[in-house]
Amino acid sequence: MADVAARERKILVAVDEDEESVHALSWCLKNVISKNSKDTLVLLNVKPPRAVFSALDGTGYLFSADIIAAVDKYSNDVAECVVEKAKKMCKDLHDVDIKVETRIEHGDPRDVICQMTEKLGADVLVMGSHGYGLIKRALLGSVSNHCVQNVKCPVLIVKEPKSS
Amino acid sequence: MADVAARERKILVAVDEDEESVHALSWCLKNVISKNSKDTLVLLNVKPPRAVFSALDGTGYLFSADIIAAVDKYSNDVAECVVEKAKKMCKDLHDVDIKVETRIEHGDPRDVICQMTEKLGADVLVMGSHGYGLIKRALLGSVSNHCVQNVKCPVLIVKEPKSS
Repeated sequence: MADVAARERKILVAVDEDEESVHALSWCLKNVISKNSKDTLVLLNVKPPRAVFSALDGTGYLFSADIIAAVDKYSNDVAECVVEKAKKMCKDLHDVDIKVETRIEHGDPRDVICQMTEKLGADVLVMGSHGYGLIKRALLGSVSNHCVQNVKCPVLIVKEPKSS
Repeated sequence: MADVAARERKILVAVDEDEESVHALSWCLKNVISKNSKDTLVLLNVKPPRAVFSALDGTGYLFSADIIAAVDKYSNDVAECVVEKAKKMCKDLHDVDIKVETRIEHGDPRDVICQMTEKLGADVLVMGSHGYGLIKRALLGSVSNHCVQNVKCPVLIVKEPKSS
């Protein structure tokens, strides 16, 4: 029926500080969401646990309380900035109002993205192919692979186009 | 700009005899292709090499020439049937004309799907999460995983909904 415009869908987009996730969001806005859509776009940023940042220091002694507080603040600021930037892109690229919700969660991105997809009853999960930068990916494993294996709804993996 | 309706996109859908790929196609028709779209849908069926069917017989002696010919014919018939069934579904589910092309190729589905995605300059690749049944998957590996890793365009992985 090609009833894209008529149905209300919940589209969950995992956004992070990587450009790839911004590209995934813009691709989704241009290709999945139609002009007169009633879709709700949920922008999800997952802050990985602190263990990831301090992984090179297993002892916990090298980081003082202020440094940990500063890192936490930085991590919160980055998360706020990421979802705000993503929200702005939704307005810029989509010239009619679509409902945009933002969520910042904390935990292992692999688990949290899957849990939120389920919890929100998302119709589709959209994400970059990496989800996280090289070093974090080495520590966390491939987020997108994990999500493809574990979520029940369709998953759209968007890669950053290589400059050619 | 949410210019789904205005742009011409090439959407490659990998179809096979599994119900999952039929579900992927129907999800794509309902959620990605808008009503007044100029999209071209390319339905691709890849016939795996005969080695897969005769993998349990490494000697080549057990199968006579007629059996091999019969298997080949069966495999061709299945491929024809799969793409025809998929084409019919496009007409049934999409009440306006969209351009539908069909292709039957031969080879390792992982390689062929990636090559065709590149060759046709597809804007998005749509497929089921398995791509092939349990036994064939054990022999061929996960087709969708391979494609997510190797194609440059966005990949939409659609799972068959579990009856609950």
